[in-house]
Amino acid sequence: MRIALLTGGGDSPATNAAIRAVVKKAQQDGHEVMGVRRGWAGMIEDEMDVLDRHAVSGILPRGGTILGTSRTNPFKQDGGAEAIRATVRGRKIDAIVAIGGDDTLGVAHKLNGLEPPIPAVGIPQTIDNDLDKTDFAIGFDTAVSIATDALDKLHTTAESHHRIMVLEVMGRDAGHVALTAGLAGGADIILVPEKPFDVEAMCDRIQKRRDIGKTFSLVVVAEGATPVGGEQISKDQATDQFGHVILGGIGEYIGRRIHEHCGLETRVTNLGHLQRGGMPTAFDRLLGTRLGVAAVELVEAGRFDAMVAMQGNRIVPVPLGDALQSVKPVDPELLDMADIFY
Amino acid sequence: MRIALLTGGGDSPATNAAIRAVVKKAQQDGHEVMGVRRGWAGMIEDEMDVLDRHAVSGILPRGGTILGTSRTNPFKQDGGAEAIRATVRGRKIDAIVAIGGDDTLGVAHKLNGLEPPIPAVGIPQTIDNDLDKTDFAIGFDTAVSIATDALDKLHTTAESHHRIMVLEVMGRDAGHVALTAGLAGGADIILVPEKPFDVEAMCDRIQKRRDIGKTFSLVVVAEGATPVGGEQISKDQATDQFGHVILGGIGEYIGRRIHEHCGLETRVTNLGHLQRGGMPTAFDRLLGTRLGVAAVELVEAGRFDAMVAMQGNRIVPVPLGDALQSVKPVDPELLDMADIFY
Amino acid sequence: MRIALLTGGGDSPATNAAIRAVVKKAQQDGHEVMGVRRGWAGMIEDEMDVLDRHAVSGILPRGGTILGTSRTNPFKQDGGAEAIRATVRGRKIDAIVAIGGDDTLGVAHKLNGLEPPIPAVGIPQTIDNDLDKTDFAIGFDTAVSIATDALDKLHTTAESHHRIMVLEVMGRDAGHVALTAGLAGGADIILVPEKPFDVEAMCDRIQKRRDIGKTFSLVVVAEGATPVGGEQISKDQATDQFGHVILGGIGEYIGRRIHEHCGLETRVTNLGHLQRGGMPTAFDRLLGTRLGVAAVELVEAGRFDAMVAMQGNRIVPVPLGDALQSVKPVDPELLDMADIFY
Amino acid sequence: MRIALLTGGGDSPATNAAIRAVVKKAQQDGHEVMGVRRGWAGMIEDEMDVLDRHAVSGILPRGGTILGTSRTNPFKQDGGAEAIRATVRGRKIDAIVAIGGDDTLGVAHKLNGLEPPIPAVGIPQTIDNDLDKTDFAIGFDTAVSIATDALDKLHTTAESHHRIMVLEVMGRDAGHVALTAGLAGGADIILVPEKPFDVEAMCDRIQKRRDIGKTFSLVVVAEGATPVGGEQISKDQATDQFGHVILGGIGEYIGRRIHEHCGLETRVTNLGHLQRGGMPTAFDRLLGTRLGVAAVELVEAGRFDAMVAMQGNRIVPVPLGDALQSVKPVDPELLDMADIFY
Repeated sequence: MRIALLTGGGDSPATNAAIRAVVKKAQQDGHEVMGVRRGWAGMIEDEMDVLDRHAVSGILPRGGTILGTSRTNPFKQDGGAEAIRATVRGRKIDAIVAIGGDDTLGVAHKLNGLEPPIPAVGIPQTIDNDLDKTDFAIGFDTAVSIATDALDKLHTTAESHHRIMVLEVMGRDAGHVALTAGLAGGADIILVPEKPFDVEAMCDRIQKRRDIGKTFSLVVVAEGATPVGGEQISKDQATDQFGHVILGGIGEYIGRRIHEHCGLETRVTNLGHLQRGGMPTAFDRLLGTRLGVAAVELVEAGRFDAMVAMQGNRIVPVPLGDALQSVKPVDPELLDMADIFY
Repeated sequence: MRIALLTGGGDSPATNAAIRAVVKKAQQDGHEVMGVRRGWAGMIEDEMDVLDRHAVSGILPRGGTILGTSRTNPFKQDGGAEAIRATVRGRKIDAIVAIGGDDTLGVAHKLNGLEPPIPAVGIPQTIDNDLDKTDFAIGFDTAVSIATDALDKLHTTAESHHRIMVLEVMGRDAGHVALTAGLAGGADIILVPEKPFDVEAMCDRIQKRRDIGKTFSLVVVAEGATPVGGEQISKDQATDQFGHVILGGIGEYIGRRIHEHCGLETRVTNLGHLQRGGMPTAFDRLLGTRLGVAAVELVEAGRFDAMVAMQGNRIVPVPLGDALQSVKPVDPELLDMADIFY
Repeated sequence: MRIALLTGGGDSPATNAAIRAVVKKAQQDGHEVMGVRRGWAGMIEDEMDVLDRHAVSGILPRGGTILGTSRTNPFKQDGGAEAIRATVRGRKIDAIVAIGGDDTLGVAHKLNGLEPPIPAVGIPQTIDNDLDKTDFAIGFDTAVSIATDALDKLHTTAESHHRIMVLEVMGRDAGHVALTAGLAGGADIILVPEKPFDVEAMCDRIQKRRDIGKTFSLVVVAEGATPVGGEQISKDQATDQFGHVILGGIGEYIGRRIHEHCGLETRVTNLGHLQRGGMPTAFDRLLGTRLGVAAVELVEAGRFDAMVAMQGNRIVPVPLGDALQSVKPVDPELLDMADIFY
Repeated sequence: MRIALLTGGGDSPATNAAIRAVVKKAQQDGHEVMGVRRGWAGMIEDEMDVLDRHAVSGILPRGGTILGTSRTNPFKQDGGAEAIRATVRGRKIDAIVAIGGDDTLGVAHKLNGLEPPIPAVGIPQTIDNDLDKTDFAIGFDTAVSIATDALDKLHTTAESHHRIMVLEVMGRDAGHVALTAGLAGGADIILVPEKPFDVEAMCDRIQKRRDIGKTFSLVVVAEGATPVGGEQISKDQATDQFGHVILGGIGEYIGRRIHEHCGLETRVTNLGHLQRGGMPTAFDRLLGTRLGVAAVELVEAGRFDAMVAMQGNRIVPVPLGDALQSVKPVDPELLDMADIFY
């Protein structure tokens, strides 16, 4: 068999671990892997090379993706799907393995739904960890590690300066990174999209800490968190309850409100692209490796339109459509539990 | 309620996260926590102090255990259990929360079985991750991280010197650290107690790599791995199939055999106590935090002789007896999967 | 003797190493150390406690300062210097050891210049490393490490997405962090206050890389860098050559200009407070330790109005006035050397 | 000009930074660099390839050496020097740049002394940092970082178990890693070749700590440390004062003696090859970069038989013969200073 392998959307650490695993498993079983350049763009434009074991040598600990990535969506441009079909035919591709988040895997799902179908399977990879039906997506554990390390760093400076430190992390639709890193990094206040926040309540909590002699507090906020009564208008614009535009991101907004409302010196840090870079954790490398092997097994079993998922300690296939149906929210029990820690 | 909290056996990173969580959850619910010094020794000798939130402030990222630990087993010394009962009565302890591995939790189980029972619950903590009924024990993810980082370090020097590098890691009865770190760190050969190894086969595999231009190889071995036909005699002594004593640990033995049998330059590193030290990973800190909170909930529910366990993404109670019945071996599918990577 | 020890200004990793060293050296020689709270504010308000070896136990690897810090300058408030004299007399302080940057050490210098003098010595500590007469100030090596790690992280994501990544680091008056981390982290363009930058030249350099197949570039910029013909107006406001205000920091400005002028997709990250937090490097811990010991020796020798400095491999005393006379710029040879790397 | 570049002896982190710098500087100035395989062995056997900027792309953060290394010494084998001369002539090499420690640079020195000379310059690279006339050699700062991190890890476990932990680090002839990491990592006892140790005095010091409530101690020992009255016989064999062979390395010996003589539970860790692996520190990457550029400048100036050295903040040339004349011992003042910290 000949497998086309691509990575789409925002890059994540440990994606290379999955690429390596796909190649090594395929090679062992006698298949050929074509490495597609820049996600779906490379499928449309027929840019790919054979990936052999030399090509994946030494990539296990490296961040990013050796294949390159893009946000190109063939169903959002004229003739995109047809171009992919032409590439599949021209290159005699038997199956596509797509690594990415909801957008990238959404394309894979639609390709499987064409008549006749273009067979594809998906590997979940998004530092937001908001894909449904899998406990973990590739990159999440590393992003949490980096955000936790940032909280550790902010902790010492907050304590030395008796300040409120706000850290903004990724999570437009779900607050997995904020909640997990917040708990692991000892944040006093954790704000996620799943639960609108109230500035008054934040000030109360900070004050409670001051009452017991803690003159500093750490706040971690997911980029998609919104104030009670407010509204997130678009990716780049949001308002508070008074209709005021929230400039400079939610982190800046919260810093300003704590300063104004609670009357405390506040500093804001936006973790930004640091979250998706660098060396993957051991957890993510193992996850990527297991998912990569399992994806080839799905292809071998002819089980398309599916995603390999981690559930508990096991890797299982789930229908792609199920995984994409809705954003996976944070565990409400975990969110409640966070209330204990301040 | 008054809860006695102790940590026993070998220390692990993130134990302090669990201690902090027990204290904060207990405080929120109006209980008092007594911090017992040096594991079961402190219960026997009645050494403990009140643990309040100031005592656990700032300990989340720190390795080790602020309570100290010991390998004292009250059932292996005369009057041990009676002394514990006296302490429980004298201090008006309502329940014991014990953090540790099979030995420490085994004591908790036996205390629950006394007539009348001394109520105790357990939190799994062992970098070996060999406690049954829980996917993860506290400390394992950090130990794997450290071992993976060691493999990354050995990789560059192995490649520069065209050598075979052997890394010995913990795991007397099960090879979880070796297998997980071996996969995450790109080891070419992974040796675990669950599957006796054959030196001949190792040489073949190393030779296969040389045939494709890879002049170095990485071997990771769990301390309890044994050669085919050989036998592990005791903690400090083992023999190979010819009855020869394996001196200096299994790592040294393997290094010698590769040198003799495959005729290649080999260097051996024993990771030793570095595996149990230092800053815990975010994963372990979250795990410790969740298990600590859940342990207090078990106590509140009067559900004793139980261990809090992680199964999939959820924390659940399991009978202590079940968790201790047998050593949890590595997943055989994962072990088979490792054969792909070299 | 009784020594008052304080830390002022922005906190730095390894400040605690210097605090520990002052205390241990003083104790060995029979002196008493008073730990002053919150920098010069604590001297004005007479807030201090005895620091003994238990107080400094375990602080060597911890970021921040256990004494707390502030930006209070007694010479900028009425009666500040008099209040300090009163504290010195009331507490029978023989000498002050001040740890900090130009502002904190400037106060120490002025106190020595009063009639009669209040004896004080200084320990250089600033992640900007812009104090003159010392090769290194405490915190610089750690800040460079963190910035280099950030560049490593941005490198993988820049490469995967074929983007220009801009990293803004500290350095208002001198570009030590930007230049050192830029060289260590493989930045393609390094912008520092010492040399105004030209957007046209940046585009040329980025284009040169594209010509040889490098579709991404890394830019590191010190916060005080200015465009050719432009002007830095104040801490929070700067203009470009057309008099346009540079909003959102120099990093944002550069990102916008590269996008507009070079026509390339660009992402900006501001490292912010992450630079001053977390665990100090071994280099910084040794530096802090040596400087702390040497500061006590200066006090013992009655050599006041001096700063302990690192010059080559040796710790030497320099007059405080000399160290404060001017900002230490980056080595022009090093800046020229950076032109080789892109 | 055509420059042959090689790396010899034990590998060090940041060697690749120097390789990259040599190539980029040479390319800028119009020279060609030949990358020699496996140190002097590659010069003897004429194994080399052109190194262009693509070959050194992305190697800055990677440990090891992309050129490979060996311990081959052409002056210790018949016809070695002649073979090198033949290679130099055949390949039309104008100069050799050798990166390594005393053995590798010793060969470079001898080649310069032949009649006619084979022109060569040296770049100091040894994690032992025992080359004279340079403050730092490539790899030392990273090795110290790794050893300091190991001490941090051992610290938490020592404290939890009330144990004595011994860490053996590299340093056969000089104790730079042990002393620097010992100070940075808070070791209570530091043993180096420069000063024979006394077990009695160690017990006293450990006891002093117990007297003030510290039930654990950390010992760091350089592999070449010897007991008072004892003798280091060979690389693999040493005796104590009673003529007893020290088996299993000096770390094991010390662990046994502390156990026997001070009566305390002790655990020994040998850091081994972990010290030379992995990602280099920012300090080492900058050092490697500066030394690499400077080496090409030496070649351009026709200044052979010299080594580029770091003295203070400057890179300067020194005669190779001077650098090799004697092992650089640790700074005795620093060794004395260590006595304050326990």
